[in-house]
Amino acid sequence: MKKIINEPADVVVEALRGLGLAHADLLRVGFDPEVVVRVDAPRPGKVAVVSGGGSGHEPLHGGFVGRGMLDAACPGAVFTSPTPDQIQAAVSQVDGGAGVLLLVKNYTGDILNFETAAELLAAEGVDVRTVVIDDDVAVQDSLYTAGRRGVGGTVLVEKIVGAAAEEGAGLDVCERLARVVVANTRSMGMALTAPTVPHVGDPSFTLGADEMEVGIGIHGEPGRRREPLADATGIVAGLLDPILSDLPFTVEDRILLFTNSMGGTPLLELYLAHGIAEEALARKGIRVERKLVGPYVTSLEMQGMSLTLLRLDDELVRLWDAPVHTPALRWGA
Amino acid sequence: MKKIINEPADVVVEALRGLGLAHADLLRVGFDPEVVVRVDAPRPGKVAVVSGGGSGHEPLHGGFVGRGMLDAACPGAVFTSPTPDQIQAAVSQVDGGAGVLLLVKNYTGDILNFETAAELLAAEGVDVRTVVIDDDVAVQDSLYTAGRRGVGGTVLVEKIVGAAAEEGAGLDVCERLARVVVANTRSMGMALTAPTVPHVGDPSFTLGADEMEVGIGIHGEPGRRREPLADATGIVAGLLDPILSDLPFTVEDRILLFTNSMGGTPLLELYLAHGIAEEALARKGIRVERKLVGPYVTSLEMQGMSLTLLRLDDELVRLWDAPVHTPALRWGA
Repeated sequence: MKKIINEPADVVVEALRGLGLAHADLLRVGFDPEVVVRVDAPRPGKVAVVSGGGSGHEPLHGGFVGRGMLDAACPGAVFTSPTPDQIQAAVSQVDGGAGVLLLVKNYTGDILNFETAAELLAAEGVDVRTVVIDDDVAVQDSLYTAGRRGVGGTVLVEKIVGAAAEEGAGLDVCERLARVVVANTRSMGMALTAPTVPHVGDPSFTLGADEMEVGIGIHGEPGRRREPLADATGIVAGLLDPILSDLPFTVEDRILLFTNSMGGTPLLELYLAHGIAEEALARKGIRVERKLVGPYVTSLEMQGMSLTLLRLDDELVRLWDAPVHTPALRWGA
Repeated sequence: MKKIINEPADVVVEALRGLGLAHADLLRVGFDPEVVVRVDAPRPGKVAVVSGGGSGHEPLHGGFVGRGMLDAACPGAVFTSPTPDQIQAAVSQVDGGAGVLLLVKNYTGDILNFETAAELLAAEGVDVRTVVIDDDVAVQDSLYTAGRRGVGGTVLVEKIVGAAAEEGAGLDVCERLARVVVANTRSMGMALTAPTVPHVGDPSFTLGADEMEVGIGIHGEPGRRREPLADATGIVAGLLDPILSDLPFTVEDRILLFTNSMGGTPLLELYLAHGIAEEALARKGIRVERKLVGPYVTSLEMQGMSLTLLRLDDELVRLWDAPVHTPALRWGA
């Protein structure tokens, strides 16, 4: 295993220490349990937007804590759900009395632990709602899920709901918006190589030199099929076609196209793939009105990419464009 | 070779097409020859800041074209200098009549081609100056350089000079600032794995499973020494110590610390390393006043990192903080 780490057991805590030092103007990191919270939380009267999940997907979620996006993130161990006490601790530090929205990626462990935390919080009198993100069209059930997995679309949900909460929208509106974004978002990913979890030490799976995994999850879990390596045009079509037919997206739809690196794929390849996807959508008469390109929902050093499409309306465009100031997404502020 | 590409010969052109589509609000991409220029260029009366170099280091340089940074970038083939005609074409599209500053990383091919272009431009009556960036303390001469290589510090030079030019500073001031930043910047990098150049198809070098290359260049060219793999604390110390003793940086110095991923190293590891570096500097009494963490000067999918330190003064802090709006760096605008 070749990584820039000290003891594998300390990776998450040491990385959080670095995150906190690098972005002390935006967030503070708590330990015991580990939480990442906005530096100005709690904000009285503001709906608190909280997410979390296993580490290893950076910048998700801690890199999205800040003005106009998340109030707190709960980082679990690598590829492992945060615990209920982490989620409770995060909520208690950011709850401004206007309710709390938990944004949860659909994985069995995450669902269970966020649900437990939500019950405990409700018993304390916190108005807490949960929206589950399940945008991955690749597989119906998977190694870690009943139903579809939550993947790249998570960033879009967090940005749009975070913008609404920042503007002062109430809990009902924030919850509705989260459900609207989830309902209109579809993703699919693929990988060329496997990630290595630090405390495991070996690659999560093996792929032949001429193979790729199509429909892979963000923990390296199996996708739809293992295929001979295709060229970029073939790879993009193999992701785009199942996404388009699923919602379905149709002629004249306005969309946000998010081309995401799984971590180890360089920007040179990612922009190349993005261009192919944009041109393919233009040929189908689908209007790409907003774009996001970069490594935002990763799987450690895994080489690969995902595409996410969100069907836009005027409200979603406005909230996407609204100011955001976090370590990983920043504009208008 | 596992990459998301079509024909290896088309990688740069196709990636530029994607860059242009993704960021049409900021820049436009020209072909024949390939150039990336600000969408609002030329700006009459503004010094034009132009850089460029081999592709494969993205987001450098095209990702830094936009308001408050570069007016144009000239992307060469992967790990290959841009040609004089590319540089001339870029300058001719952004020259606003107030002079042109060429920011050139110190590699033999780049120096030669930018020099040729500068002579041709001067003959046309353009007031063109060149500042060479050579911040890498690892080796004095190298496979591709006489003198030190230009590496991570390039981003800092481009940001600070770009901010001055945006404010209306004249060519003399911009040139002086570039020289000040170069004089006060030092970098060093290391790698765990090798990059694969698309048109070559094999890794640029081989490293054993327990080896790392310390002092590596951004083309995978050899560094100071090949060593047994160290832990993160050892890796950071191995980069920081030669940097600190070189300028030298001393107690009470105010610095910008830039922790850079070589491309394939995930953010989890990068933040971990950044935290170790910040804590080490604090123990030495050096004040880390600004930070930048991310993959900004890369070597395709190479796993590894570099550290760059810039000694700050009030003027440099102000220009670093000034608004910037490019694909890869954006704040205050």
